Amino acid sequence: MPSQPHPDRLLPADPRVRAVARELYRSVRALPIVSPHGHVDARLLAEDGPFPDPATLLVTPDHYVTRLLHADGVPLGELGVGQGSLDERQARQVWRRVCEHWTIFRGTPVASWLEAQLAEIFGVTDRLSSATADATYDAIAARLAEPDFRPRALFRRFGIEVLATTDDPCDDLTAHRALADDPAWTARVLPTFRPDRYLEPGDQGWRDAVMRLGEVSGIDTSGYRGYIDAVEARRRHFIDHGATSADHSHADPRTDPLTEAETSRIYRDALAGRATEAETTAFRRHMLLEMARMSCEDGLVMTLHPAVRRNHHTPTLRRYGPDTGHDIPLRAEFTDALRPLLERYGTAHGFQLVLFTVDETVFSREIAPLAGFYPSVYAGAPWWFLDAPDAVRRFQRAVTETVGFSRTSGFVDDTRAFCSIPARHDMSRRLDCGFLAELVAEHRLDLDEAAEVAAELVTANPRRAFKL
Amino acid sequence: MPSQPHPDRLLPADPRVRAVARELYRSVRALPIVSPHGHVDARLLAEDGPFPDPATLLVTPDHYVTRLLHADGVPLGELGVGQGSLDERQARQVWRRVCEHWTIFRGTPVASWLEAQLAEIFGVTDRLSSATADATYDAIAARLAEPDFRPRALFRRFGIEVLATTDDPCDDLTAHRALADDPAWTARVLPTFRPDRYLEPGDQGWRDAVMRLGEVSGIDTSGYRGYIDAVEARRRHFIDHGATSADHSHADPRTDPLTEAETSRIYRDALAGRATEAETTAFRRHMLLEMARMSCEDGLVMTLHPAVRRNHHTPTLRRYGPDTGHDIPLRAEFTDALRPLLERYGTAHGFQLVLFTVDETVFSREIAPLAGFYPSVYAGAPWWFLDAPDAVRRFQRAVTETVGFSRTSGFVDDTRAFCSIPARHDMSRRLDCGFLAELVAEHRLDLDEAAEVAAELVTANPRRAFKL
Amino acid sequence: MPSQPHPDRLLPADPRVRAVARELYRSVRALPIVSPHGHVDARLLAEDGPFPDPATLLVTPDHYVTRLLHADGVPLGELGVGQGSLDERQARQVWRRVCEHWTIFRGTPVASWLEAQLAEIFGVTDRLSSATADATYDAIAARLAEPDFRPRALFRRFGIEVLATTDDPCDDLTAHRALADDPAWTARVLPTFRPDRYLEPGDQGWRDAVMRLGEVSGIDTSGYRGYIDAVEARRRHFIDHGATSADHSHADPRTDPLTEAETSRIYRDALAGRATEAETTAFRRHMLLEMARMSCEDGLVMTLHPAVRRNHHTPTLRRYGPDTGHDIPLRAEFTDALRPLLERYGTAHGFQLVLFTVDETVFSREIAPLAGFYPSVYAGAPWWFLDAPDAVRRFQRAVTETVGFSRTSGFVDDTRAFCSIPARHDMSRRLDCGFLAELVAEHRLDLDEAAEVAAELVTANPRRAFKL
Repeated sequence: MPSQPHPDRLLPADPRVRAVARELYRSVRALPIVSPHGHVDARLLAEDGPFPDPATLLVTPDHYVTRLLHADGVPLGELGVGQGSLDERQARQVWRRVCEHWTIFRGTPVASWLEAQLAEIFGVTDRLSSATADATYDAIAARLAEPDFRPRALFRRFGIEVLATTDDPCDDLTAHRALADDPAWTARVLPTFRPDRYLEPGDQGWRDAVMRLGEVSGIDTSGYRGYIDAVEARRRHFIDHGATSADHSHADPRTDPLTEAETSRIYRDALAGRATEAETTAFRRHMLLEMARMSCEDGLVMTLHPAVRRNHHTPTLRRYGPDTGHDIPLRAEFTDALRPLLERYGTAHGFQLVLFTVDETVFSREIAPLAGFYPSVYAGAPWWFLDAPDAVRRFQRAVTETVGFSRTSGFVDDTRAFCSIPARHDMSRRLDCGFLAELVAEHRLDLDEAAEVAAELVTANPRRAFKL
Repeated sequence: MPSQPHPDRLLPADPRVRAVARELYRSVRALPIVSPHGHVDARLLAEDGPFPDPATLLVTPDHYVTRLLHADGVPLGELGVGQGSLDERQARQVWRRVCEHWTIFRGTPVASWLEAQLAEIFGVTDRLSSATADATYDAIAARLAEPDFRPRALFRRFGIEVLATTDDPCDDLTAHRALADDPAWTARVLPTFRPDRYLEPGDQGWRDAVMRLGEVSGIDTSGYRGYIDAVEARRRHFIDHGATSADHSHADPRTDPLTEAETSRIYRDALAGRATEAETTAFRRHMLLEMARMSCEDGLVMTLHPAVRRNHHTPTLRRYGPDTGHDIPLRAEFTDALRPLLERYGTAHGFQLVLFTVDETVFSREIAPLAGFYPSVYAGAPWWFLDAPDAVRRFQRAVTETVGFSRTSGFVDDTRAFCSIPARHDMSRRLDCGFLAELVAEHRLDLDEAAEVAAELVTANPRRAFKL
Repeated sequence: MPSQPHPDRLLPADPRVRAVARELYRSVRALPIVSPHGHVDARLLAEDGPFPDPATLLVTPDHYVTRLLHADGVPLGELGVGQGSLDERQARQVWRRVCEHWTIFRGTPVASWLEAQLAEIFGVTDRLSSATADATYDAIAARLAEPDFRPRALFRRFGIEVLATTDDPCDDLTAHRALADDPAWTARVLPTFRPDRYLEPGDQGWRDAVMRLGEVSGIDTSGYRGYIDAVEARRRHFIDHGATSADHSHADPRTDPLTEAETSRIYRDALAGRATEAETTAFRRHMLLEMARMSCEDGLVMTLHPAVRRNHHTPTLRRYGPDTGHDIPLRAEFTDALRPLLERYGTAHGFQLVLFTVDETVFSREIAPLAGFYPSVYAGAPWWFLDAPDAVRRFQRAVTETVGFSRTSGFVDDTRAFCSIPARHDMSRRLDCGFLAELVAEHRLDLDEAAEVAAELVTANPRRAFKL
């Protein structure tokens, strides 16, 4: 049975509203993709080698896909997770697993995205099942061998104008440099400064991280002052390579300040392995405030994705590593947590802070009210567990009434699944147009206003929020 | 004025979507009822005596009905609560109260359920009011005297395939045994192990409870080890009588482990009346972890309904007893609370944990992400204050995008109002079909897929989640 | 381009549902306005002078309007905030700012309310923009000079039957008295007792406030007993001037009791500047319980609007004062917080407690369950950040299923923008009728029931909840 995505998918069911949505969608469908936050590796594009196989491209690294299969009883190892590169037999076996369990994805955006990719990129329109596993594998694999299916070719075909990656502060960014220096490459691929692990003295590996930070920056990080200097140096390095934002994710977004004496002492004790948990937490919170101070000075947009319990299942972490589907959201709180930061920098010229959440209770309660007063604050798009049609609709309705459209970030795909980028952005455009059409149908917005907003959400908003 | 329930009630208003919903509903309407969690007393069926009167059947024991009348100023005593058995005059008076205040139920599922019961079981289609109180009372009472309106006859007419009751660990389960041994009785009526009060040393009555546990099990419960052995023995007793699940409800679902030395000491101190509140709370949390350990060993599905402040209004508790309408929900937290349990048992073979909540904020934030990774975790259906059309729709939209349909428990009616069972399951089927029809209308699911899912939600899902 | 509000605005898009909604709306559109909670100054009506200019009337005092302009980069000073009275040049400049930035209000209720006011009160139907700024300013200004646009004339034209203001306990209420004594004035303008700052010994200014309370009441407030007597005396003063309710807003709604000895000691220490933060917080929580005790005795309805972090941005507070757009909601909790109060007074005859929230998570979790049991508790209408179409719809769906319609307060406009009152109430009526029409369309309510409810929500409910 064919599963060609329907041209009207995700548009409102009511025929009159759908007609308006369709008209709006037609006007934005082909606009270039601006992707200001995601997890594609820049080396993929710099090197431009062929993708190895369908499983490695579409399944193994994408915890959206693997987590639900795991819940359905498929061990992560059978999906290639933590196995290194797969041979043909293994890759085909992974693909078969997906196809056998395909019905569990019904009703999820993962199904929509994957079906859209198969149909629109690879021309595969058979519904996945045990019966179609091998044929679809073969069809995709055949395409991946063609030059038109190399990363750069796909990137161009996808119509991506800007793609921001997520990078470690110690990364030398040679892949970004190579792309920027390549006269044959005209799109922007920008690094994003992601310093989390350098700011958490309570984490295993922090000491090694700041030592390496010292080496890479050539600044002695054995004391707090040097550590700050080194972080600032690396931010400059990122800015020199095109970065416009720094991305932060901690268990909570508190920003309580410490004195310089306290930070110096905790830093020293943490290096010596003597800091308490309360101290390392206080240090991390202070550092988030410091990151805002640096953003005021160097202009990097500050994005905040807090309140996720990373690696919830330690046995899985040990066996398969992080980002394997068991990061679980926590309750979030921004109003009091960000107050010290916003008291200091909330109206600072040029400072921009984009707030993301996987706890949707803060959309109407905290994020929209904050973004509706502070010139620096933007309401970030629904993200991760919330980047799906109904969740996006809840976001639209929770946020717009308080902050309108201009204070929102526009869509972020946040994906490590390269080929899902167009499907995700397309979904977002459909949902925006559907929402706007409903406002028009209820006479809350005129059609010409809706058309303007639809286009702005795709391009003007992310460009403004992320200084692109 | 007649109030015959409309055949299209609760289906989406849009005519094209409704047509799809109607088709789906037609295909599942007559499927048998699987009721894996509720509060009907097995003796009702074992004894099969006639129901005494309309008030005792439909009003007095159902806190869904009495709580809103109480809010409207009717004392619980006037509704028969805490009055023992009612004579004809009293019962009629209770029914009159309901009819006089009937308009306050507008917009609530209680009105829908009661109207459906009256029309479809008793053939009463007059809208309730002072004017119709006596006539409707008489009509119902007349039916209750007929043999076709005895519990077993209704049970068969309702099409119930499995009914799980909720039972005290010390219950001898003779009613369940009698039903199982009765060759004329073919349906399954299963006990559910509900040990809450044995796990809360901070509660009044705990000491008596564990002493009685010792008597019933024939195991000395004066020490922690014997207490554990006795709990395990009672679980085996339940399993021998058909139980497939154990049900747990505490103020929070934390599962922090204690050492055996700590539990033994707190147990001893609690028996002696010397344990602090912190200690009894710690003990209860440890015991929830122990319950998971036992579930891994004996196979009982673990269901969790936490975060309700029981008996909020002490004067009402004193006068009328528990379950009288003033249990009020609390904020829930699962991500960190369940982490110790899931670290240990989350991927254990055969272990199943169904999570329920009356705090709907955890649907998208915690329950769906947990059920979308752990093979043991199921997202329980919306329950209690949330078992109503709009709340069910919020549940569907909050959970499905992250976990699809396969990781949900299917509907639980959780009712002590026997005659409301078909109305509640019918409501659930209508809402499922409406949701699926909307997904079809938005081209997010094909019609054949929707039809498969509609049937699975009714039967396959509860059977799987509750091991029926 | 004209922006005449559409006659069907905010009604459901589906034509059959809209037809029902339209019929319901027609039946309530012209009912008088009952406004039991708001922030209009009674002197406005007592003095009945002309409104000075469009900016002072429609922009400067309304933080709904100024906050989003501030977020878009317009300093509050450029909007006239904190500038005292504006001259013509300044006022026109403020209006120009609004018009230049008008597109940022797209999708917000602020746009709807302002457009409705311009069209329906001032006959201005040009869409606001830089191009139309001066002409619309002139048109409004011209109207404001006419006698028909004075406060009393507008009040009558708006069809307001009752308007409750919000007043300081030390206010002499001469404006209210003057209106009540004026034979030419027949509407009710009632004060509301708002004692927050007298109950917060931790606030700067508390000492001065209670000293002034002593002067105004003629009762020595140097000790706790006298302070209580003075508060009670001022409540009687308000009741003598027509007040029916007392309004309370604190960071949390806890109501833990202290002993008289503790309160007396903390009161004394607070006056002497020696009380700790924990003590002043405990005192405030005890005082909220005391306010309920007083309400039981004197009959003032108790309304509670908790959990807002006032004046989040201290630099803005210092420069522009309070109520300037940076009050940000906090997480709310009622179940445990109100338990001491409800244990004591929850079923007290004549006691009424209306619960409001800007944390919508408590609608289904706490407020509806409480209002669905306690005869004293009413679910207050969605308020402040939540008084917008989609938020109202979430409120309707979160609350009605548990408490029906009778336990809700009816709409409160809570506004300091006098001319927005009709637009806000009209929006509420449209949304009520739309919701009811949807229930009718899904056969959850009959049309005659919906019509009754629609009218009750407009008049019977606020009259009952606020004892009007």
